[in-house]
Amino acid sequence: MSVTNIDRATRIISRCREIATCTEVPGEITRRFLTPPMHSVHTLLRQWMEAAGMTVRVDAIGNIRGLLQSPHSDAPRIIIGSHLDTVPNAGAFDGILGVVLGIAVVEELQGHRLPFSIEVIGFSEEEGVRFSKPFLGSLAVVGKLDEETLRRKDQDGVSLTNAITHYGLDPERLPAAVLCEDAFAYLEFHIEQGPVLESEDAPLGVVEALVGQTRVQFIFDGQANHAGTTPMHLRHDAMAAAARWIVAVEEYAVSHEGLVATVGKLEASPGAGNVIAGRVKTSLDVRHAQDEARHTAASALVESASSFAGVRGVKVTTHIEMDQPAVPLDPHLTTRLHNAASKLGFSNRRMTSGAGHDAMILAPSIPSAMLFLRSPGGLSHHPDEAVLPQDVDAALATAMEFLAQLSDDKTKDDHA
Amino acid sequence: MSVTNIDRATRIISRCREIATCTEVPGEITRRFLTPPMHSVHTLLRQWMEAAGMTVRVDAIGNIRGLLQSPHSDAPRIIIGSHLDTVPNAGAFDGILGVVLGIAVVEELQGHRLPFSIEVIGFSEEEGVRFSKPFLGSLAVVGKLDEETLRRKDQDGVSLTNAITHYGLDPERLPAAVLCEDAFAYLEFHIEQGPVLESEDAPLGVVEALVGQTRVQFIFDGQANHAGTTPMHLRHDAMAAAARWIVAVEEYAVSHEGLVATVGKLEASPGAGNVIAGRVKTSLDVRHAQDEARHTAASALVESASSFAGVRGVKVTTHIEMDQPAVPLDPHLTTRLHNAASKLGFSNRRMTSGAGHDAMILAPSIPSAMLFLRSPGGLSHHPDEAVLPQDVDAALATAMEFLAQLSDDKTKDDHA
Repeated sequence: MSVTNIDRATRIISRCREIATCTEVPGEITRRFLTPPMHSVHTLLRQWMEAAGMTVRVDAIGNIRGLLQSPHSDAPRIIIGSHLDTVPNAGAFDGILGVVLGIAVVEELQGHRLPFSIEVIGFSEEEGVRFSKPFLGSLAVVGKLDEETLRRKDQDGVSLTNAITHYGLDPERLPAAVLCEDAFAYLEFHIEQGPVLESEDAPLGVVEALVGQTRVQFIFDGQANHAGTTPMHLRHDAMAAAARWIVAVEEYAVSHEGLVATVGKLEASPGAGNVIAGRVKTSLDVRHAQDEARHTAASALVESASSFAGVRGVKVTTHIEMDQPAVPLDPHLTTRLHNAASKLGFSNRRMTSGAGHDAMILAPSIPSAMLFLRSPGGLSHHPDEAVLPQDVDAALATAMEFLAQLSDDKTKDDHA
Repeated sequence: MSVTNIDRATRIISRCREIATCTEVPGEITRRFLTPPMHSVHTLLRQWMEAAGMTVRVDAIGNIRGLLQSPHSDAPRIIIGSHLDTVPNAGAFDGILGVVLGIAVVEELQGHRLPFSIEVIGFSEEEGVRFSKPFLGSLAVVGKLDEETLRRKDQDGVSLTNAITHYGLDPERLPAAVLCEDAFAYLEFHIEQGPVLESEDAPLGVVEALVGQTRVQFIFDGQANHAGTTPMHLRHDAMAAAARWIVAVEEYAVSHEGLVATVGKLEASPGAGNVIAGRVKTSLDVRHAQDEARHTAASALVESASSFAGVRGVKVTTHIEMDQPAVPLDPHLTTRLHNAASKLGFSNRRMTSGAGHDAMILAPSIPSAMLFLRSPGGLSHHPDEAVLPQDVDAALATAMEFLAQLSDDKTKDDHA
């Protein structure tokens, strides 16, 4: 990295850390949808966007949107975006890095105009913390924020509509947040939030699809009993049944390429060391880039739970809490992004995203691409979440090359 | 059962249900050590004991003690006892049945004097609920209530010594609670609190030993991570490691005769369905009538935890919380009890007790025996805890025959 490149990467990281000081909880980074610190976030981003020559507005859901207008009045636009909100006690890069990098892209142009406009969007909500529903910002942009969602209440009983009003915005103006039809591409930079790139020593990842996700609640109902007086052959041990099943979940996932399956939650009742568990309530999270593989896995694991429980005289009931299809990203843009990174010599790999991102919401409406930056230690949703300056620089350079290629395409199109 | 026998069994059960109305919590049975309802328990038992011709006192730890003095001034005494306190939301028979049956034994004598005295003791505390330490009543009787225990505080900050004073008793008089040296035998009736007798269609069980017990806390330390972005081969899943180990615990116990091993408690952190568990805190409870078998099991299971964790990059730390030796009961008295039941035609089996009882505390000081009564449904520490009238009658008849045999022994001894 040249000195200049170190400088620009360092400045992007510094800006993220400056945004991180806008928090609801002093000493940690916690910034939920339209809470007071979001005003400071908007102020900082507006300054940077305007300094880069963009026209700035905050739409009715609280997305900040900076537009670098193309000189051609009928030019289409590319959206570059990610989110502004955080989980509780978060790191400084999840979401916001994608917005700050979007502004950096515009700065890098140094007044050089492309055959399309660039709109950088900082989505006001993606994590789902305040209203137990994620993607509020991007849903508004694609016109899919429904009435049920607007009536939702936060933990203090404030409805989403009232939260908008309290922040000083006008819910009546939500229709104006919806994307114009001139958007031809969406690009999102995001930290990987996983260990894959680091384990392969690659700075960048090009996302081909966001995995689909099934969440199932499992309840194992056995019989609580005295741990000393109940011989093994007369037990109906819900914990033993659940444990045997959890082993099967791990075995299944390990032996099926591209699948991840997780049991992260387990509550045993009565939950005393000297009482056989009568009931175990647990969770299954299955993800795969192909919906069929995911459905097959979920069915197989529901079946195996019944079988391991049955031999112990334990009953299983299951409840599907989520069945979210995989979202493929645009193959053309994805290949362009991959080629751009490779041309510049940045090691990068095509991969799936195991987490949800705003791109999931945008992709069904406009061709979308995502660029992952390596997460040191695979760490995210944690105060120690980080990003390496050389990776930030690689992402920025890749984006500039990607835009240059798109410009060439557009120019050719115009001349065709 | 004759009509008379039905009557006496029914009366014993009615008395237990009457005592059950003495509770700290209306609508359930909750009666901790020296709480106000214990005054009513003492009042009822004193009435029944005095009506049966016994001299009654409440000692300084709150044990109620009724003495049926033998006409021979130097006659030894047999103790018949169990406890008066309950777990929260208990049943009506755990503990108290042994005291009420003790009084019934004295009533059955109908003035007929034996060559020994009978002291019926209702121990004030056995469950360990109020001061997180069990057996307070019987420990005082064998002179093993130590200073550390007396200084313990309950959840309201009241020390054990102050609890005694508040109840109207004098802690200075604790030495007078200690057994005289004339006690030659201890007999305890207790519900089995397990399913063994019911599963073998036997009304009675003769306890040969109370099992030893090891309790170990296990902490599995892996790495919390995103359930979507962390591929299976890069996980350090504390839940998967713990689950594999719990399966091994069950397998080990099933394949080792007389052993029970239980994992009843499990807490996963962070405990979210979409986060790989970084830490799992769990428990192991191992019991066996032979200490060596128990120690071997505990060691093997600690080792297997390390092994299952190790292959997943998870670390295990263990902490032994209890290592309580098995307590054998007196072989001579145990055989007498078994013979008495068999002579009367009551199907009974020699067995170990998987739970702790006051007999555990008495046995090292005086020869002790225990008679179990079948627990319908194996149920205990539950409002539906029950006992069958015919089993109560069988226990009472067996005790009368047992005492008759002991009388013969004593008479022969005197003539020898």
